[in-house]
Amino acid sequence: MATKNESKVLIGGNVYTLSGDESEEYLQHVALYINKKMDEVRTSENGKKLNTRLQSVLLAINIADDYFKIKTSIDEKDREIKELKSETERLKKELDEYIDLFEHDGL
Amino acid sequence: MATKNESKVLIGGNVYTLSGDESEEYLQHVALYINKKMDEVRTSENGKKLNTRLQSVLLAINIADDYFKIKTSIDEKDREIKELKSETERLKKELDEYIDLFEHDGL
Repeated sequence: MATKNESKVLIGGNVYTLSGDESEEYLQHVALYINKKMDEVRTSENGKKLNTRLQSVLLAINIADDYFKIKTSIDEKDREIKELKSETERLKKELDEYIDLFEHDGL
Repeated sequence: MATKNESKVLIGGNVYTLSGDESEEYLQHVALYINKKMDEVRTSENGKKLNTRLQSVLLAINIADDYFKIKTSIDEKDREIKELKSETERLKKELDEYIDLFEHDGL
């Protein structure tokens, strides 16, 4: 059905060809982010003492940490949306009651 | 200041000792998630043909993909919150006008 895109990305100094439904721009964005996280691991006090295999585990942990941190803020935003929706409903109901009273008054 | 926690986590069949401000529960949660993503890479059609180094790059890409997908939904939720807040403000203002009218009417 949809044509798969093929994009070459540079991750950790190596070129990888990725194919998928994602846009070239998105994949470059992901690659840039991974490179930034790799640099953080390689230059950090703890990370630079580790071998490549352990660095790649630390990299996965750090990216997963970003994911879970943002996931928590999603949950908070969902709660906020729920509260705002219920407040909006309450206000609409109250407003309708006033409008009804006014219409009666006008008769 | 704060005491650092030390937690042993099992990632990809190896035990790692992580230390940081995060709770034991959080770190186990992160480890579970990484193991799930590792299994996906190792058993997928494309992933199982790759060597360990390439699998770890694919793992980083897949976790980063989860991160960016959820990050997009944050932007959408922020927009929704902004709209709901402005709707709530509008309703409150309208309601205040009715309440004012009513109070004048009552005098």
